[in-house]
Amino acid sequence: MLLAAAALMTERNTIDVPVADVAARAGLNAALVNYYFRTKTGLHIALVRRDAAQSVAEMQRLLATDLPPAEKMRRHLTGIIRTFYRCPYLYRLMRALMRDADSKAARELSEFFSRPVVETQKAIIAEGVATGAFRPIDPMMFHLCAIGACDHLFAESSTLRYTFGVTEIDQDLCNRYAETAVDILMNGFLAKSA
Amino acid sequence: MLLAAAALMTERNTIDVPVADVAARAGLNAALVNYYFRTKTGLHIALVRRDAAQSVAEMQRLLATDLPPAEKMRRHLTGIIRTFYRCPYLYRLMRALMRDADSKAARELSEFFSRPVVETQKAIIAEGVATGAFRPIDPMMFHLCAIGACDHLFAESSTLRYTFGVTEIDQDLCNRYAETAVDILMNGFLAKSA
Repeated sequence: MLLAAAALMTERNTIDVPVADVAARAGLNAALVNYYFRTKTGLHIALVRRDAAQSVAEMQRLLATDLPPAEKMRRHLTGIIRTFYRCPYLYRLMRALMRDADSKAARELSEFFSRPVVETQKAIIAEGVATGAFRPIDPMMFHLCAIGACDHLFAESSTLRYTFGVTEIDQDLCNRYAETAVDILMNGFLAKSA
Repeated sequence: MLLAAAALMTERNTIDVPVADVAARAGLNAALVNYYFRTKTGLHIALVRRDAAQSVAEMQRLLATDLPPAEKMRRHLTGIIRTFYRCPYLYRLMRALMRDADSKAARELSEFFSRPVVETQKAIIAEGVATGAFRPIDPMMFHLCAIGACDHLFAESSTLRYTFGVTEIDQDLCNRYAETAVDILMNGFLAKSA
């Protein structure tokens, strides 16, 4: 069912996919969707939860490696951008679920997605500061800047279209964006001599 | 009328302010709102246009100064964050207007707000690369990263609340965020020796 929802959202390039269509694609009765997820929001949260679980597992594997902290952070940030590219519905789904910051959905999403991301970044920052690779940095400030820079390629579709003439985010653009964004966050853009 | 709309949105901390209330605050007949702006969206676009005009004028003054490019960019980025703080409705209004990238509102907003910001950044980058102060950087990539990092303090209210326990963005937080975000974008967070 979640696979069907993800596939339809990706194909149609919208998160606004009727529950009946999801059920049909999954070859199941629409009543079952209601049985398992209760509401469309329930289905959406379950989908984000599935994607989050995969990302959190990846982050934990990364944290457990022996890579130097700078390389860990580089891979972590690149992974965030790739995740948004791989699951094109994910950014819009999260925005829609978190639109009302007081909602139960927003609280849940913060718990099972944002918190593990923040904890991973905190751990890598602590390692990096301990080894002298990173300047000391407030993890909250870092989190906001990093996520903002990582997700903004997916947030600015009208600027992309009307100001830059870009109508589609393809693999190549995603890769170049990941490279530049991670480079700016880690190195800034001042010339080394400045 | 626009002053009244801005004041009410700021006071109530929501962009969902009835046209009738705006008219009442401005001491005008609600029919006049319809006469001048036709729709609520029309009122919203006019409000963003007013704030944009102010920001664009500030950017042009900044561009015309003799400051070194790095200092110009620092002030430009800080200015973006301060604008979102000073007009707390602005971020949400722009999001709402740009939600549908095909809409007339999204196209207009890209023209009168995003384009001047992009042009300003392009000009400062060109100056900075010419003087050797900046590494060469793609203006589109830079724009997306920079705006993403600058606006994300205002985008993540549920993460702020549930993960960091921050329920309100005050002047002090805004200042510290501006300092850190601008510092990361310009210098990155790697230790200089790394």
